[in-house]
Amino acid sequence: MPDKMLKEGNTAGIRLMGIDPGLINTGYGIVDASGKNVCLVEAGLIRTASDTALEIRLKEIYKGITSVIRDYNPSIAVVEDLYTNYRYPRTAVLMGHARGVIFLAASYGDLTVISYPPARVKKALVGTGRAGKAQIQRMVQIRLGLDKVPEPNHIADALALALCHYDCLAHNFGHEFTGRI
Amino acid sequence: MPDKMLKEGNTAGIRLMGIDPGLINTGYGIVDASGKNVCLVEAGLIRTASDTALEIRLKEIYKGITSVIRDYNPSIAVVEDLYTNYRYPRTAVLMGHARGVIFLAASYGDLTVISYPPARVKKALVGTGRAGKAQIQRMVQIRLGLDKVPEPNHIADALALALCHYDCLAHNFGHEFTGRI
Repeated sequence: MPDKMLKEGNTAGIRLMGIDPGLINTGYGIVDASGKNVCLVEAGLIRTASDTALEIRLKEIYKGITSVIRDYNPSIAVVEDLYTNYRYPRTAVLMGHARGVIFLAASYGDLTVISYPPARVKKALVGTGRAGKAQIQRMVQIRLGLDKVPEPNHIADALALALCHYDCLAHNFGHEFTGRI
Repeated sequence: MPDKMLKEGNTAGIRLMGIDPGLINTGYGIVDASGKNVCLVEAGLIRTASDTALEIRLKEIYKGITSVIRDYNPSIAVVEDLYTNYRYPRTAVLMGHARGVIFLAASYGDLTVISYPPARVKKALVGTGRAGKAQIQRMVQIRLGLDKVPEPNHIADALALALCHYDCLAHNFGHEFTGRI
């Protein structure tokens, strides 16, 4: 298992956790990467019921992410950027609640937290910032050598975030970490 | 000190914590209420530096709220509703992050969490949903018998939330807890 102490920029062996935050569905995926090899370690979905109190749902997300961090010990969390969904402000603010407890879990787990906007991830993986969900799923499948496309798309998006950041590390694109498209 | 086990609706003696969530400034205020008597127990501000990483700022807010809950043992958290600031979506989403970790802290502290939109609080305290900040501060000062108006307004807003909810409990306006204006 990669050592949690491995620093960014050292891609000799690193474990990354991608997270696609959402109040209803939070996707996560963990990959091990070393040189040109990237492989899936674990991926899943934290789903909360909409008829449950907000504070209980947030606790489920927090406990879920904390548990995955404890079990798999990644060194970096790559989280979808907050500049999304402004056309649906209520959804965006609720996503902010989920993202808040995810950042908190990552902070208590001593992970470095990095964010990318969705268009940056799409461009990194597919070559265009307007790639559709199916294209992302297919590219994640190819990159990780999976038998099937990762479902649901929240998991594919989480894995795509991890792959995007690893590509940046591997290519020394450090200055693009917070880039917007 | 009021027993944490006191239930809503029993206003014989209750300790409420009002919270005005914000990434930069989170105001909080604790009041003890019994019958027509309401008094200030503690109030303060959790301030985070904008040049600090988001996950560190959220941890400061979480630890701050957790610490106040542990020290003062309120039974109910009254938090400003999320339907605000949609004209400034980035601010609203960042507020959502802060609100998320506040709800988490309240959940781990076994508090009941209640929300009111600002206009509902203003109407409860001043009589109009369009009351200005100075009017809210002045009314909080009068209701709590304070020597000065509470400053900054984040603290006054937090105390106003606690007072608004106590008024609803005392008047059995339970059906208005989630009302919008």
